[in-house]
Amino acid sequence: MKRKSQARTDKPGTSLSSLSLAHGKRVRLWRLLYGHGPANGTLMVLPLDQGLEHGPTDFFPNPPALDTSFQFRLALEGRYSAIALGIGLAEKYMHEHAGRIPLVLKLNGKTNIADDAEAVSPAFASVEDAVRLGADAVGYTVYVGSPRQDVEIREFGKVRQECERFGMPLVVWAYPRGRDIEAKGGKGSLYAQDYAARVAEELGADVVKLHEPAPEIGASPEPYRSLREDPPARLRRVVRSAGRVMVLFSGGVKQDDDAAVLRKVKLYMECGATGVMFGRNMWLRPMDEALALSRRVHALLSRHPR
Amino acid sequence: MKRKSQARTDKPGTSLSSLSLAHGKRVRLWRLLYGHGPANGTLMVLPLDQGLEHGPTDFFPNPPALDTSFQFRLALEGRYSAIALGIGLAEKYMHEHAGRIPLVLKLNGKTNIADDAEAVSPAFASVEDAVRLGADAVGYTVYVGSPRQDVEIREFGKVRQECERFGMPLVVWAYPRGRDIEAKGGKGSLYAQDYAARVAEELGADVVKLHEPAPEIGASPEPYRSLREDPPARLRRVVRSAGRVMVLFSGGVKQDDDAAVLRKVKLYMECGATGVMFGRNMWLRPMDEALALSRRVHALLSRHPR
Amino acid sequence: MKRKSQARTDKPGTSLSSLSLAHGKRVRLWRLLYGHGPANGTLMVLPLDQGLEHGPTDFFPNPPALDTSFQFRLALEGRYSAIALGIGLAEKYMHEHAGRIPLVLKLNGKTNIADDAEAVSPAFASVEDAVRLGADAVGYTVYVGSPRQDVEIREFGKVRQECERFGMPLVVWAYPRGRDIEAKGGKGSLYAQDYAARVAEELGADVVKLHEPAPEIGASPEPYRSLREDPPARLRRVVRSAGRVMVLFSGGVKQDDDAAVLRKVKLYMECGATGVMFGRNMWLRPMDEALALSRRVHALLSRHPR
Amino acid sequence: MKRKSQARTDKPGTSLSSLSLAHGKRVRLWRLLYGHGPANGTLMVLPLDQGLEHGPTDFFPNPPALDTSFQFRLALEGRYSAIALGIGLAEKYMHEHAGRIPLVLKLNGKTNIADDAEAVSPAFASVEDAVRLGADAVGYTVYVGSPRQDVEIREFGKVRQECERFGMPLVVWAYPRGRDIEAKGGKGSLYAQDYAARVAEELGADVVKLHEPAPEIGASPEPYRSLREDPPARLRRVVRSAGRVMVLFSGGVKQDDDAAVLRKVKLYMECGATGVMFGRNMWLRPMDEALALSRRVHALLSRHPR
Amino acid sequence: MKRKSQARTDKPGTSLSSLSLAHGKRVRLWRLLYGHGPANGTLMVLPLDQGLEHGPTDFFPNPPALDTSFQFRLALEGRYSAIALGIGLAEKYMHEHAGRIPLVLKLNGKTNIADDAEAVSPAFASVEDAVRLGADAVGYTVYVGSPRQDVEIREFGKVRQECERFGMPLVVWAYPRGRDIEAKGGKGSLYAQDYAARVAEELGADVVKLHEPAPEIGASPEPYRSLREDPPARLRRVVRSAGRVMVLFSGGVKQDDDAAVLRKVKLYMECGATGVMFGRNMWLRPMDEALALSRRVHALLSRHPR
Repeated sequence: MKRKSQARTDKPGTSLSSLSLAHGKRVRLWRLLYGHGPANGTLMVLPLDQGLEHGPTDFFPNPPALDTSFQFRLALEGRYSAIALGIGLAEKYMHEHAGRIPLVLKLNGKTNIADDAEAVSPAFASVEDAVRLGADAVGYTVYVGSPRQDVEIREFGKVRQECERFGMPLVVWAYPRGRDIEAKGGKGSLYAQDYAARVAEELGADVVKLHEPAPEIGASPEPYRSLREDPPARLRRVVRSAGRVMVLFSGGVKQDDDAAVLRKVKLYMECGATGVMFGRNMWLRPMDEALALSRRVHALLSRHPR
Repeated sequence: MKRKSQARTDKPGTSLSSLSLAHGKRVRLWRLLYGHGPANGTLMVLPLDQGLEHGPTDFFPNPPALDTSFQFRLALEGRYSAIALGIGLAEKYMHEHAGRIPLVLKLNGKTNIADDAEAVSPAFASVEDAVRLGADAVGYTVYVGSPRQDVEIREFGKVRQECERFGMPLVVWAYPRGRDIEAKGGKGSLYAQDYAARVAEELGADVVKLHEPAPEIGASPEPYRSLREDPPARLRRVVRSAGRVMVLFSGGVKQDDDAAVLRKVKLYMECGATGVMFGRNMWLRPMDEALALSRRVHALLSRHPR
Repeated sequence: MKRKSQARTDKPGTSLSSLSLAHGKRVRLWRLLYGHGPANGTLMVLPLDQGLEHGPTDFFPNPPALDTSFQFRLALEGRYSAIALGIGLAEKYMHEHAGRIPLVLKLNGKTNIADDAEAVSPAFASVEDAVRLGADAVGYTVYVGSPRQDVEIREFGKVRQECERFGMPLVVWAYPRGRDIEAKGGKGSLYAQDYAARVAEELGADVVKLHEPAPEIGASPEPYRSLREDPPARLRRVVRSAGRVMVLFSGGVKQDDDAAVLRKVKLYMECGATGVMFGRNMWLRPMDEALALSRRVHALLSRHPR
Repeated sequence: MKRKSQARTDKPGTSLSSLSLAHGKRVRLWRLLYGHGPANGTLMVLPLDQGLEHGPTDFFPNPPALDTSFQFRLALEGRYSAIALGIGLAEKYMHEHAGRIPLVLKLNGKTNIADDAEAVSPAFASVEDAVRLGADAVGYTVYVGSPRQDVEIREFGKVRQECERFGMPLVVWAYPRGRDIEAKGGKGSLYAQDYAARVAEELGADVVKLHEPAPEIGASPEPYRSLREDPPARLRRVVRSAGRVMVLFSGGVKQDDDAAVLRKVKLYMECGATGVMFGRNMWLRPMDEALALSRRVHALLSRHPR
Repeated sequence: MKRKSQARTDKPGTSLSSLSLAHGKRVRLWRLLYGHGPANGTLMVLPLDQGLEHGPTDFFPNPPALDTSFQFRLALEGRYSAIALGIGLAEKYMHEHAGRIPLVLKLNGKTNIADDAEAVSPAFASVEDAVRLGADAVGYTVYVGSPRQDVEIREFGKVRQECERFGMPLVVWAYPRGRDIEAKGGKGSLYAQDYAARVAEELGADVVKLHEPAPEIGASPEPYRSLREDPPARLRRVVRSAGRVMVLFSGGVKQDDDAAVLRKVKLYMECGATGVMFGRNMWLRPMDEALALSRRVHALLSRHPR
């Protein structure tokens, strides 16, 4: 099998063919990986849960993006693999585009009004909702290392079981969060992201959304604190730590320089990522610019078949 | 479709025809929007949960209003779209008016004896109760940004699923609340109300009850803190942030000046609201005055079909 | 209907005929109101949950009352409308008197060993237990305004739904409690009792047990703080706030003067109460005195048909 | 009926014939009271949950007692009414003695590593487990007066309902515990034990395990603080407070003087106890001594038929 | 029976033949004890949950071990009795080796990012998952003595019941943890490990994973504080405290000296252990060294049939 030789040669990243999956999961993942988007085993997902997570604040740089029709148009014309959003937006906007773009139904979320010291992300939709809406995957945030991780992990486990039951792929937003991770170097550190990647694998994710790890700073625990790795080494490390879980890298806050964005994507793909989940970096641009950049990302992913 | 062009022209507000809804939801929303009240796609709802939320204190200015028959008479003779109250009042008073006025059954609530620093509103009735009572919608308070938002959001999610199951429209009282929102400018700020509007949309409301946003003060986060918008701009902003969720504005504490009340309603409707949910501003007036004002609001809404 | 005219004439209090009730509820309430006790629409209930709530301390003034046979004999020979007690006493003593005296099964309770700052009363029996035991109502304590009111209200809501399902009348011990009510004038104030009455109505009680409100003191919120009402005015106020919920007044700590007790009962009935629920004021007297006083209360209630 | 006359003569204690019980409960209680042990309506129960509650520490004075075979042999050869232990020991050791000695399956428990300020005892087995193992009763600890009593009482209520459903007698370890009881004179005081007895009755126990109450000290609430009762009066008091619940007294820490142990048992029986539940006072002696003492207790109980 | 004579001769340790087990449990335990590994009643289990429990940090000394294929190859070629891992790794890697190596599915776990003062290990998989995956046992961590032990013990009880239902052996990671155990001498003390062994037995484990107890230090409670036992005496003590629960000793942090590892294993087996569960001490060596050491452990266990 292809995947096993990869593992032996230390080349990170995974692919559908190497995985043993229940029928429904395989069918739905195939639709995401080969039926839409670059259709070569990579993923290019457009997420839209920032309105809940950060408030309308996020849309100020590009007011039209406040109307979810904007993101649907971008996802369709930009030929994304899927759009990822919660039940409220899905119920109100999907019907106009049903079947034309796969849906990753994000099941949990919260506001950022209260701080994240003891963050927990409650579910407000279910895997059954995803089935009812014809979604091809569900998304679930796990706040890795939060003081309330027991609540998170327990609820995640139930969602995972429902995913098994319905053959629904499970995309984990593995986000280090909480006062303890802040005390240990912060949520963006290699330590944090690397741990998050492994947690996603051990808890049973199919796909994991991570952030590109930052250089280590003094507060990270050893051996991370003493590591002096360059960005590609850091990226490869977290991809390897995710094992057979496909890795999507997040875009994070908007970057104005298109070329810089594309360099990032290229780097991620060279380091073993299955793809990207860029939201604000896409839909905070005017539609024509967002489409142009999306097409270049699409082309770039097309050159990295999995 | 009408709604889509609206979105493109930046004219906020939504209407029934633009929404994809399960059969039961559409039937019940139609009854509210076109079967009662102004019957032109607008909503004029008379709420009565203040006795639980604030105690009998609220009725002191108009003692007859302590008897729920007062509000039922007002709702009927004032030709409201619906009356919104909890299970206790519904069970005891509905039967005398059954079928003549739609019911929005408010499912959760609490007293204001303990403070709101960690507010959470527990459900004491269910969507099934609403079905049993022949209600045309349920109401549910979400305390946006409360430190206990995980409890709120999780419970809300279950209510929403029951609403899907029974075809019951879901009206969300989206109330910013808790120590964190107080630290960030207070529950009445544009920041708070705008966020609340978006939360209602992302969580899956059909209708949202909001307060008219106050001018920003120093404590709000940017970019809100620096905004210098006039009332119509603020109102339009929150209506837009609610997306395809219909917006009702609350009356809040009683205003003695009828003309001022009507100016408010006119402003709300011009800014895209679907209607109003005025309680104390109506039933704290003597019956004849309350009816007179109700009829003027009714007439005003009739001039703003959706 | 009689009730409606009452409301219009500001004469507080309610009666069975004015209520819309499911069949089972009506049958059982009829048994309490017209089948036993004064049998004229009033209620005279003998409660016995003080052993759990306060410990055996309460029985020291009258040791024979520690044996529940005492209260059963008193309830029977004193011709009470019902006896109210928990599952433990009901299971052990009912069978000797089954059918001769209606049972109000008290579902929740707690000790007073820990203080009441965050009081919550857990259920240890269910409505199904009440059905199994042939009870004619269930009793449930709600600690109005407790910091943990969300737990209380949520659990209450489930009990209420079971009551609907089984046609079981619901008697609410509406007790203001917790650190916040203490800070606002205490549990006995008119503010507290008036709020409790309204909470019982909005949450869906059929009968509410309240305490006679004390004169206001400085700590109560306005407008209560400035009220200068005499006892009848205070009593009428809380009866009105209970709306169509029948009000029983509690006896509280034992009063040695029989005449004073009877004056209280007379006052309560003149102010619209449906009856009384006196425990210690009855069963802390020697049997013959308790019976004598009970008979005088019985006679007094007979003169106030509802 | 015998029991009623007892109550009237102030002679405390209860018996099977005076109780109204579901068939299964009566059958199983008969087996404990008349089928094994003294077989005269008294109970002599050998408990073994100290390994969980206190750790192996308790076995140091008599290492062979660490092997549960020791207690089984003692229970059998000492002709006890029952052995009381948790699911782990029951599953591993019962099969060798099945049918020869009744089992009281203890359903909940905890370690003493964390302190008892907010003690709560979680269930780790169910009434169904007891049925499956052929037990004749279940045991359940209630920490009377713990700040977390609401958790305790709620869970207890569910266990009690399962007991009703399966006809399983319910033995309550009624243990005053927590910071509040410590502040009010401690868990061993007459106040504490008397309250615990009543709580067991009101919550619906069939049998209650109590400790012999200690003389009052200054911190107990009145009227207990001022009581000056001798040991028999204290014991009779708590037996009376347990009403129709059969009382077993605990042995507590080991007492080396056999005669003193027997004097205690005699006193308990004379004061109305149904029997004793002595663990460490039995199985911390060498087998021959433990058997000799057990036989003397057996003989003593034989002289106090119920 | 063999086991009973063992108990009498103070020779600790247990064996399958002495246990009364439901059919499914016996079949699965037989497969672990006699169908794989040394196949003589001993157990040699390779655990892999450290990625979740400690993060990828643990794999730094041997990067290839980050790929779970490494541990599977080691378990197979090293002829282990079983491999123990969570649902994520099981789902992704088992299919390549299905049937060739038994699986112990670890059901709960957490990260070590937040500290362990109030540790609780949430379940994210179920016994049903284990059945579905064809596992031969489940693993469950219990944090003995944690301030949140009530959550742990309650959840454990439910898992144990599912194990009874499905005939699934239950391996308990009995780990003393939390601020209280730290205050009493720490998690590694004889006091802590001895208590943990007994807790596993009383809660109903089939197999328990313990750590070799360290010498006592001053903070342990008496009588442990004053014990001066050598390592074999300490080991025998905890094996005896586990009663009829089979004891596996953990390897803990990696030891570089192979001979020292083997001396440990020999000592454990001589002291009554059923086997070992060594993870990092095995898979942190290069594959050839890990295999060589595994074979020597295998040979050593072969000389200690149970």
